[in-house]
Amino acid sequence: MNHYQFEDIYVGLKEEFQVTVSEEMLTQFCSITKDVNPLHTDETFAKEKGYDSKVAYGMLTASFLSTLAGVYLPGERSLIHSVDSKFTKPVYVGDTLTVSGQVTECNEIFSVFTMKTVIVNQKGEKVLRGKMQIGVL
Amino acid sequence: MNHYQFEDIYVGLKEEFQVTVSEEMLTQFCSITKDVNPLHTDETFAKEKGYDSKVAYGMLTASFLSTLAGVYLPGERSLIHSVDSKFTKPVYVGDTLTVSGQVTECNEIFSVFTMKTVIVNQKGEKVLRGKMQIGVL
Repeated sequence: MNHYQFEDIYVGLKEEFQVTVSEEMLTQFCSITKDVNPLHTDETFAKEKGYDSKVAYGMLTASFLSTLAGVYLPGERSLIHSVDSKFTKPVYVGDTLTVSGQVTECNEIFSVFTMKTVIVNQKGEKVLRGKMQIGVL
Repeated sequence: MNHYQFEDIYVGLKEEFQVTVSEEMLTQFCSITKDVNPLHTDETFAKEKGYDSKVAYGMLTASFLSTLAGVYLPGERSLIHSVDSKFTKPVYVGDTLTVSGQVTECNEIFSVFTMKTVIVNQKGEKVLRGKMQIGVL
């Protein structure tokens, strides 16, 4: 876990990590949320709708932004104020995602910074893009 | 599960549901994301930072927006394009959340609608507010 203090944060600072999406993650996410939408639970339905297989929940992919802030940037002192996410490509079980954030703005008055977030799959395709505002405790 | 078609969606249409945040949800969310930030895992750390107890992950609270779209509005035909969330109050284990969405705009050309989202706790305090853009398959 990283321990960035607000003074260590600067525009351009970047952190990233990789994670592979598993069947179990979808099952656990369903267990938490009770989102039983067939796009995420029914292979046949998803294929009928034109997808390769069951699609991972967008908000599951977005959940890794929690880790990006809470473990990597800034790590321990993280307090997430807001998260904006656009889902730009489907994510499937077995996809390896690179989750990255880069600081775009620092607000010294409130000890809050903004970062641009991008998640790409193993083919280099952008599956999520957005931004987060994070306070540093 | 609801089965709204795009033609059924109109400005002002609202759906909501309730969910109680459990310790197990935090454990499962941590298992999925590996977000081991102490604010969410260490009672003592959270209290030192001025909170009543461990704080639920903001992105766990936001995960219920997946259910709001995928099960309630529009339900089966949901395809989430984007989710913007602001976290306005801490959420704790045992809190009962009312997760609601109300349609603010319909785009007939793309069969996409926008909804305003609000999540309040059992005290009526707003813990999350934001918006989602959702396609109807």
